[in-house]
Amino acid sequence: MDSIERLSTMFERFPGIGPRQANRFVQFLLRSSPSVRRELVDAIAQLSQGVRQCPECMRFHAGEKAVCAICSNEKRDGSQLAIVASDTDLTALERSHMFFGYYFVLGGTVSLVSERSSSIRIREMLSTLTKRLDDSLKEVILAFPANPEGDATAQRVREEISAKPEFSHIKITALGRGLSTGSELEYADPDTIHDAFESRR
Amino acid sequence: MDSIERLSTMFERFPGIGPRQANRFVQFLLRSSPSVRRELVDAIAQLSQGVRQCPECMRFHAGEKAVCAICSNEKRDGSQLAIVASDTDLTALERSHMFFGYYFVLGGTVSLVSERSSSIRIREMLSTLTKRLDDSLKEVILAFPANPEGDATAQRVREEISAKPEFSHIKITALGRGLSTGSELEYADPDTIHDAFESRR
Amino acid sequence: MDSIERLSTMFERFPGIGPRQANRFVQFLLRSSPSVRRELVDAIAQLSQGVRQCPECMRFHAGEKAVCAICSNEKRDGSQLAIVASDTDLTALERSHMFFGYYFVLGGTVSLVSERSSSIRIREMLSTLTKRLDDSLKEVILAFPANPEGDATAQRVREEISAKPEFSHIKITALGRGLSTGSELEYADPDTIHDAFESRR
Amino acid sequence: MDSIERLSTMFERFPGIGPRQANRFVQFLLRSSPSVRRELVDAIAQLSQGVRQCPECMRFHAGEKAVCAICSNEKRDGSQLAIVASDTDLTALERSHMFFGYYFVLGGTVSLVSERSSSIRIREMLSTLTKRLDDSLKEVILAFPANPEGDATAQRVREEISAKPEFSHIKITALGRGLSTGSELEYADPDTIHDAFESRR
Repeated sequence: MDSIERLSTMFERFPGIGPRQANRFVQFLLRSSPSVRRELVDAIAQLSQGVRQCPECMRFHAGEKAVCAICSNEKRDGSQLAIVASDTDLTALERSHMFFGYYFVLGGTVSLVSERSSSIRIREMLSTLTKRLDDSLKEVILAFPANPEGDATAQRVREEISAKPEFSHIKITALGRGLSTGSELEYADPDTIHDAFESRR
Repeated sequence: MDSIERLSTMFERFPGIGPRQANRFVQFLLRSSPSVRRELVDAIAQLSQGVRQCPECMRFHAGEKAVCAICSNEKRDGSQLAIVASDTDLTALERSHMFFGYYFVLGGTVSLVSERSSSIRIREMLSTLTKRLDDSLKEVILAFPANPEGDATAQRVREEISAKPEFSHIKITALGRGLSTGSELEYADPDTIHDAFESRR
Repeated sequence: MDSIERLSTMFERFPGIGPRQANRFVQFLLRSSPSVRRELVDAIAQLSQGVRQCPECMRFHAGEKAVCAICSNEKRDGSQLAIVASDTDLTALERSHMFFGYYFVLGGTVSLVSERSSSIRIREMLSTLTKRLDDSLKEVILAFPANPEGDATAQRVREEISAKPEFSHIKITALGRGLSTGSELEYADPDTIHDAFESRR
Repeated sequence: MDSIERLSTMFERFPGIGPRQANRFVQFLLRSSPSVRRELVDAIAQLSQGVRQCPECMRFHAGEKAVCAICSNEKRDGSQLAIVASDTDLTALERSHMFFGYYFVLGGTVSLVSERSSSIRIREMLSTLTKRLDDSLKEVILAFPANPEGDATAQRVREEISAKPEFSHIKITALGRGLSTGSELEYADPDTIHDAFESRR
């Protein structure tokens, strides 16, 4: 396998990239100047050096300190903590400018197909919740995708938190289900209409 | 214009049909047997005869009596009435097997672009609500599409109902907004995330 | 089944129409004025009366005479005759303003899945070709879709024409294969590239 | 700009990649092991070292020698040479197993919007053609996309080759136009039908 095919094979592992687009990426890099390629190499290499995982929310960040800019921001609302599946979901919530509490990134959702103990960070989650008790944590918001895996993850997290007496006063909520912006009743699936009725107000 | 073009032009007025598909419809009818065409002609002609508009919910139906099968079903829950924009939306709610109250079809949504007084059936709605007071109507559920027209319609309906003292004890709710089934946080728009946070529970 | 469902079921048989769109058609007709429905009924009924099949090319047309406007146009080029699968394909060729000969509509393509003798109009085709011999017919152009059914139909038609000695001087051609307008080599399938090479010039 | 944003910005320059997918690429690399990132860095770095541009066809390749494996393969047919716009188009032709001559990669198509002298490799093309004269080159096949830029490029190349008396015996052909595999007449655009008629046979 030559160096063109080798790089193409690596790009195929990128999320959502097939052989044809992987090949276009390689052609793009071949046509780019050597300085562009060097810049890209540097940027990837720096991920290993400049990026750390926040010990509190577990997300990856490029800050100078171990604790990330969100977790170390004392102006955020310590009474709320949102548990999300991934860094990307955390970013989506921040983009909505709706939530000002802290976060915890589970690192995935419970798999419904494989039997093996899933690798979500339950232990770290409980440890972070314990730390946040001092910030008068009152509500944990489960912000998982609206699919069976997300639901199973929510159930698992509820069970783990409920099993600890020290969290008994904490309210556990989940993001609301219903009609998403722009949706028409005519094209909504029955489950969504069901949720929309249940969450009417 | 010959009879082929004439029929093609009529099919072009059907919702979602362009010239090409209109032409395919005509070709389909040309290739069909005369009995199939006669059957279609009968079925359309019967719409004018066999279909009536229910005087209570205003939807079109093919029942023998003036009042439709839903409005005349005394086993439905008289304490709830859902207001919808169209017959199609009513069908969508029935399909979800979630709601067992009565309906009223407004016949459209408030237009945000045209200034002219919209043709939604406000007067008929108030009249139907008055009739349903005897069935101990307690809740009116606004089931409009999750878009600006739907929101403007909801506001208009709320104002009209609130203006009548005899409806002051009726609770007005709207279908919940949030993540629709299957949606991922990553691809949800900020408005939907906003709604999902507000309707968390 | 009431008259709404009955009409909806009939629209579902239209090409490319599913239950949801069939239902929208019925709703559209219900909301239309009675005069619109009457107009549609008339237009469909007239198809049976006003439309006839041309005895030469076999297409449906709404002309006053039996022979259609194309077949009776003596200014067209009698040396060429295009054989097409359907009326719609004939329309597509006319739209391109490229061909000025006469046509014959086979009424379908040879089916590759069913064994039964296909219902394409071979006998009528041979009869029309014989008539056109007097117009000094020199070339028959096979204008079938570029798929296996189209290829099988072309082969069948070639065999039928070649079997008649009186057509031995007629040249049989087929529409060219290659890159269609707007296509990129990168996304062209190998068969198309193969054809494009073979038909290069 | 931190190292996550910096890498994300670089991925946004990749063909067909928007901010959201660029961000997913970075998250993917963050979740990958350091060895995977190191492997990717190596593969990109090797493009600069291991990849060279063939001095004859001008494509990028990873062979040990300067001249690429196609141009140095003496079993290929020296009487034909295909001129293509890009390395990707060359790959598409090879995939079709239809062409066994040599290639030349122009490096782009003539731009129809910008006035500036386009950067396609005309000089190098003429030089490669001259070299191939010894291999008894007889036919140059223009294999450009079937769009206005491709047509303008073909015209430009034809003019350049025709201007040289030493190439006067070389036949210049272009890939055939017509119905591409799988296309129906009904959906073919008039230009394609036009081409299909012209290239019938």
